Amino acid sequence: MDLDAVLVDHAHCEMKAATNALSLVVRHSSDLGLVRALTEIAREELEHFQRVVGFLEARGLRLGPPPVDDYAAELRRAMNALPATELPLVVDRLLVGALIEARSCERFKLLIKALPSSCPADLRAFYEELFACEARHYRDYVDLALGAAGSLADLVEARLELLAEAEARIVRSLAERAVRGTVHG
Amino acid sequence: MDLDAVLVDHAHCEMKAATNALSLVVRHSSDLGLVRALTEIAREELEHFQRVVGFLEARGLRLGPPPVDDYAAELRRAMNALPATELPLVVDRLLVGALIEARSCERFKLLIKALPSSCPADLRAFYEELFACEARHYRDYVDLALGAAGSLADLVEARLELLAEAEARIVRSLAERAVRGTVHG
Repeated sequence: MDLDAVLVDHAHCEMKAATNALSLVVRHSSDLGLVRALTEIAREELEHFQRVVGFLEARGLRLGPPPVDDYAAELRRAMNALPATELPLVVDRLLVGALIEARSCERFKLLIKALPSSCPADLRAFYEELFACEARHYRDYVDLALGAAGSLADLVEARLELLAEAEARIVRSLAERAVRGTVHG
Repeated sequence: MDLDAVLVDHAHCEMKAATNALSLVVRHSSDLGLVRALTEIAREELEHFQRVVGFLEARGLRLGPPPVDDYAAELRRAMNALPATELPLVVDRLLVGALIEARSCERFKLLIKALPSSCPADLRAFYEELFACEARHYRDYVDLALGAAGSLADLVEARLELLAEAEARIVRSLAERAVRGTVHG
């Protein structure tokens, strides 16, 4: 219903995805394979960010400071509250990255279905491209988590399920609070 | 004398340059021209980072966590300690970015002169390319500062000189402390 607001939110999301990938690079820089893959993801997110900014400019919109991000904060809290595991911490961080990409992929799918007929063709094509990218990034993050788990890779799937359940609870709770008008972002 | 240590330090510097540019984007996102230009710089720094990581891998080197960065911390402190100005804060931040690029440009010039004859040709060519990039980024940051100053652009040159003097004092002091073996990074 409000494509302008979607675009502004989307720009912030691309920037957060890039800076989150780079913060993982800085925290886990001893693994050069991981460093390369995450930097590649960050570069792609920045390229998407630039393209969203292009759409903002074309529509005469402003960006403004990023809103408070309850989703990311609660996801971090949920990750820290999970039962202890033998897996290294980087695995949880990569799986959270995977879930954010998967949720984003789902959002683009819903968005594409709901786009008004007035939506410009280039913007619609951009969203379709991003839908495919987010699905690929989900897979990339899961593969990186499996790699980082090493000999404990068998534990990753169950850990992803635990995190996915927590993420689903957060999304439901934020949606309910949004309906009541008490949610940020 | 220790090209391996130079490469590791260089990788950290490229990543810091990228994340610093992105932190300016997030803090000053209302100016889309600035946002675009800084994101472009960040993307270029990430591309350089990837190439340095390639050289690290080719030489069998590890990256490890970034060292404490006294230079950046003292530069920030010096910026905050400058006399008050009518210029918006973003101008100081951009000028600090300009000075970091200028100092980096100078370092590449000194490095190229000091490279041992055993330095691979592709690495030497990379440093020559970067020397030119850093000079361009210096100019980019100064131009962005002039743009951000708007009608106060006349004040920018004197402010840059003030900051440059503070930066020179920091570099001298760090060099002296490095000789005495009490400096990080």
